[in-house]
Parts: sequence; structure tokens; C-alpha cells
Amino acid sequence: MRIVEWRELTVPLEGAVRNAVVSFADHTVSLVAAVSDQRRNGRPVVGFGFNSIGRFGQAGILRERLFPRLRQADPDDLLGEDGGFDPAAVAAVAMAGEKPGGHGDRASAVAAVELAVWDLVAKLGDEPAYVTVARAAGRPVTGGPVPVYAAGGYYDADGGGDGGTARLRAELDGYRAMGFDAFKIKVGGAPLDDDLARIEAALEVAGDGSRLAVDANGRFDLERAQAYGRAIAPYGLRWYEEPGDPLDYALNRALADTYAGPIATGENLFSAIDAENLVRFGGLRPGIDVVQVDPGLSYGVTEYRRLLGRLEAHGFDRASCHPHGGHLINLHLVVGLGLGGCEAYPGVFRPFGGYAPTCELGGGTVRPSQAPGFGLEEKPELVPHLAAMTGDLT
Amino acid sequence: MRIVEWRELTVPLEGAVRNAVVSFADHTVSLVAAVSDQRRNGRPVVGFGFNSIGRFGQAGILRERLFPRLRQADPDDLLGEDGGFDPAAVAAVAMAGEKPGGHGDRASAVAAVELAVWDLVAKLGDEPAYVTVARAAGRPVTGGPVPVYAAGGYYDADGGGDGGTARLRAELDGYRAMGFDAFKIKVGGAPLDDDLARIEAALEVAGDGSRLAVDANGRFDLERAQAYGRAIAPYGLRWYEEPGDPLDYALNRALADTYAGPIATGENLFSAIDAENLVRFGGLRPGIDVVQVDPGLSYGVTEYRRLLGRLEAHGFDRASCHPHGGHLINLHLVVGLGLGGCEAYPGVFRPFGGYAPTCELGGGTVRPSQAPGFGLEEKPELVPHLAAMTGDLT
Repeated sequence: MRIVEWRELTVPLEGAVRNAVVSFADHTVSLVAAVSDQRRNGRPVVGFGFNSIGRFGQAGILRERLFPRLRQADPDDLLGEDGGFDPAAVAAVAMAGEKPGGHGDRASAVAAVELAVWDLVAKLGDEPAYVTVARAAGRPVTGGPVPVYAAGGYYDADGGGDGGTARLRAELDGYRAMGFDAFKIKVGGAPLDDDLARIEAALEVAGDGSRLAVDANGRFDLERAQAYGRAIAPYGLRWYEEPGDPLDYALNRALADTYAGPIATGENLFSAIDAENLVRFGGLRPGIDVVQVDPGLSYGVTEYRRLLGRLEAHGFDRASCHPHGGHLINLHLVVGLGLGGCEAYPGVFRPFGGYAPTCELGGGTVRPSQAPGFGLEEKPELVPHLAAMTGDLT
Repeated sequence: MRIVEWRELTVPLEGAVRNAVVSFADHTVSLVAAVSDQRRNGRPVVGFGFNSIGRFGQAGILRERLFPRLRQADPDDLLGEDGGFDPAAVAAVAMAGEKPGGHGDRASAVAAVELAVWDLVAKLGDEPAYVTVARAAGRPVTGGPVPVYAAGGYYDADGGGDGGTARLRAELDGYRAMGFDAFKIKVGGAPLDDDLARIEAALEVAGDGSRLAVDANGRFDLERAQAYGRAIAPYGLRWYEEPGDPLDYALNRALADTYAGPIATGENLFSAIDAENLVRFGGLRPGIDVVQVDPGLSYGVTEYRRLLGRLEAHGFDRASCHPHGGHLINLHLVVGLGLGGCEAYPGVFRPFGGYAPTCELGGGTVRPSQAPGFGLEEKPELVPHLAAMTGDLT
């Protein structure tokens, strides 16, 4: 059993939106294909993965470092004891010769590779990826559904922050019509009073603070983080996301000492040791706070399972994990690993963001289909990209 | 005043050596050229920078993200208040649209760009870069010399660890003949007893523990880090470098509680906030421990000055900073910023490692030449690469 070819395609994300810190107009994603020598229906079986959404494609690291190592490896080094492809072994080969530390772009490049192997293994077993992932992790196999909320409420790329609360309500009303009953909006890109008006407008749709989260995208210093904390505390929001620099554990701890509600963070931490530092030094509270590390940006499922082990050793329940990145891959991982839930970006991050029409979405939950692997082939806007990568294979 | 072109050349490092964790056989460096519209002697003035040594070139991030932003920017956004090129402004433009966190490969790509601008500014001022850097930092301008030690004592790429202590002594004797009087060798790639034999062989050349450091390259868990600590404590070594994972602050703190001698770490931390976390949570001791963050891997001089400010706020003296990366750029930064000293890798990391023949090396110190900029043009093995990047310019 061999992976005979590794391919990468850099795909731009659609939708010019911005959060408190960055515009996504130039963001890209690396779609990776692991082409096997196994055949089904007269075609090679191909595993697809991508490095989540919200940062950048990694063509350079994939083509210059990871793919050469994978191509030069003894093919048996990519196999597990059962003789099948082993995502952990593939990730280890991809990382050969890399130094410790520096978990940034590299982490998402490795993730795209590792996730492509999970897709491949699931397809070879003719089962959805959540089944493969659950079995490998020794978890009960359930098919969901899992909670999902709609993330949006961006400031417009052309400025915004002008108090467009009617537009915000309309946006969230649209998500409600799609079957969502919980929402997340951005804060920190406008003055506090404007943001409070936006929150109150969003609460008119959400109905209750427990159905609305706010996301500052790491913008605040401690003083401003605490000022926002004091201002939003009365709303009893679902969570207050990434108030400060993701690595500023001291800030997070100081905020957790004064803000009683849940704090969510971690989408910009890309390794198990960074997440453990957040717990050790960042004041993260078991049973209250939410960990949003995204497997697709942080070396994939193998590293994410390490992270879960460390969190559980510190008293956290995996239900407190809500990975960043609302897309099919993370849906399968949330279901397979028994995590707390998913996000969704109905309006943005196409073609990767969102789920497939075959997924059941409604009542505030989402359930994956029975397609083999992550089922990317069932998402119409992804199909042309998948075809472009593999159309020449016979 | 305009930067009219940005170029990148990926250059392989020579020398197949390994430390406790990785082989350097496949390592590369990105050489960056900032081509200005200013002319001297009938030729455009070009600033050169590179992303230090020991990790990888960053052609992908430079060509896909940083260079496009720099090319599309308003040229005035790259200038300071004095109308000259401003390295901090250039770094900010290069980082536009990047999210917080994830300080890995990106940090070294930005460093290569930022450092090229320092070289350019110094050349336009017709002065060595240490003068430009010192003036910008409000530091007294001295020309050195600064302490330097020879780093080597690698395990052979083909295995080693066989107790080749005679070869190790001969290697260090060679460094002594070059003018070095302090040394660093690797540990952790062989069993403890073999490493102790290597340390004792090295001490025969070094003469005293204060002239010998050992480097574990982040290999150890806490138990092994402490076992090595207990075993080497009697030698009174100069420092015990990177015992554990660079981000495992809890490990570093536990070791600092039991190992009384200096611990050196930070070469695999790539931002000011990571270094501050090391101080806040890693038990780093002012007046004892050594910080090795490498500006060429961590966003350049602008971020490094931020880091110095944070260290000094925690009671550290900048003399406790010994940047990783023994090469001309870091020599100028150590002199210009008043840091503790430099390292040198006489045997490896060509063509970037080591100094130029015009630098004064001897008596355990090194002093930069008076060449404009970082003086890369005075390092013969770099000349062909510089020429390959700019030979077409007229």
C-alpha cells in the first residue's frame, strides 16, 4: 500500500470581510491530495485535506520541506502496524529534521498533510471520517448531531463600524432562517459604545446571552480587555473570545480573575505545549472556559489528541473544546472525538467554510453525512478544485 | 526614495552535521535583497538580509505574502519621519493582514526583509550597520570587540556518539588555534556517560568550566534534564543550553529550581511575547541565565528591541543576551545593541556562518570591520550568491 503522489493547490478564500485585526481578502488555503495506489471503481483513491481557514496556504513549506521528505521516505514508514496508512506516522515523516518550537505556518502545512491521510484511510475503509477517527481514538462511534453556532457579524471590509445594527440583525436573522439558534459576532473593531449597540442588536435575534458569543480576535491590551469585560458582563454572554494576544497568558489570567463568564481562546495556538501553557499559566478554568485550538492549523488529529490528553490531565472535559474553523473536516473531528461543538461561517470563507447540503443542519445542530472520508466531494463549491487536482489521474 | 525591487534566493547550508534532534543536511537560508533607487558608484544600492541559520529558507512566505504587500504598499509607508527607509515601517507593511500568534516560519521571513532594510540604510549612510543600529536604539556607538565562543562538538551526521573524544579535542584545539578561548558542544545525542566523557575531553582544551557550554537542543524531558543537570553541576559549566522543549516553561522553571548554574535558552522562541513568557513562567533568573533569541529568526531588530525592553523591565541586563546564530548580521547587532556576545560555528553552516576575514578575531573576541552595512560583501563565500541576486542590475 503506497502513497504514490502528493499534490498541493493554493485556493483563495472568497469574501472581503474583516475582524478587529485583519482583512481576509488575501487569505488562501492549501488543499492537499494524497494519491494512493489503491483503486475503487477504476480510479485511484485520493485523500484530501486542507489547512483550515483564516490564515494562509503553505505551498512553500509543503513543496520545499514536507513533500520531499514524504517522497523520499521508505514507503513502509508511512504505514501502521495494521499495514494501513498511519496519519501519525505520516506526520512524523513530514516533520523529520524540524526543530522544536516555532509552531506557526509549519503547523498548518503538516495539518493539511495529516488530514489528507485521515480522509484517505476513511475512504479505503468506505466509512465517514468521524468513524475512523473515533475508532482510532478508542471513542464510541456516534454520528452526531453536534451543536453548531453561526459566526459572522464582521465589520465590513470597506470600513463599517458605523452602527449598522439593522444590517447585523438582518444577517443573524438570515442565519436563524438557515437553522442556527446561536451566534457569534466581532467586537473590538469599533468603539466600545458602538460594539455594545451591536451586541444589543444581536441579542434581539439571539434572544438570550447564552446564545451569543463575542470575539475580539486578540486585539485588546489588559486595560481594554477588562473594560470590555465589565461592560459585557451584564449580558451573560455565551463566551468572550480571544480578548488579548493569544500568547499573553498573564493577560488571560488577569482577565479570568475579574471576568466571571466564560472566556474562549486558543485558535491562534498551534501545538499541545502552547495549549498546556494556556492552562498552566493563563488561568483557564475547567468547566467554564472554552478551548478553540483548530486541528487544521495545528499539526492535525495526532497533535490534537495529545492536546486533549493534556487538557484532561488538567481537569478539563473535551466538551469544552470548540475548534475554530467551521467546515466539514472539523465537523467530522468534533463528532469523532466527542468535542463540544462546531462553528459555521455561512457567509464567508467559501469554498472551504460551511458544510455540505447532505449534512443535516437545523435546530442548532449539524450532523455529517455518510459519505466516505470527510465528504468534501459533496460540497459543490469544492468539487471544481478537487477535480483540478486529480482530473488527470487514471 | 524608493525600494524598487524585492528579491529572494534560497541557499543551501553546507556541512552534514547533526545535534541531539536534527540533521542540518537539508537546511536552507533565504537571502533577501532590497533594491533601492539610490545609486553609488554608478550602481543601485542594495540591502541584503537573511533569516539566520539553523532552520529553513522561506521562499513561499516571502514570495506569496510579504513581497506582494511590500510591492503594493504606498512607497511613503516604508519611510520614517526623516525621509529615509524605516525598518520598523517595512516590517509592519510586511505583516499587514497577519493574525497574532503563530511565530514560526513567518517570523524568520519577516526578519530577512527587516534586516535587508538595516543593511540598506547603513549603506546609504556609508557606515557599518552597528553604527546605524546603535544610533537608532539611542545606544553609545562602540565598535566592539565583543566576546565570542566557538560552537561545535556536533555528533557526526553518520552516527557518531561512539566516544570519539580524541576527534572532539582536535576540533576544539583547532578553534583555539583560530583565536577562540571558549567553546560549546552538543549533549543529549549520546548516553549520559558518553556525554560526560565528551565534556571531560572538551574541558581538557577549555581549561575551565567557565569556558565550556553544553547544548541539549531541547531534547530532554524533565527527568532527563535534571539527571544531566545533577551530572554536570560539578563542572561549573558556562551554561546548560536548551535542556527541554523551548516552550515548556514549567520544565525550565523546575530545572532552574534545582540546577544552580546558568541555563541558556530562547533560540527557538520567535517573538517578544514568547520571551516574556519564558521570564514570567520559566523561572529565568536575572544575573544568571542567558537569553538566546535570534533576531534573524524572530522578526528582526524592531521586535528584538521590544524583547530587550521587556527583559529589562523584568530586571535582566542586555548583557545576558547572546543571540543564536554566529554570523555577520548578529555580530553587528550584538555590537550595536550592546548585547553579551556572539557565537561562531567555524566548521559548519557555510556560506552564512562565521565572520569575514576583515573582522578581527582573536583573544576570545571578535570585532566587525568598517565595511558599510553588515559587510556581507566581505565574506568571500557569500559573494557569488550576492552577485547571483544582483548581477543583472545596472
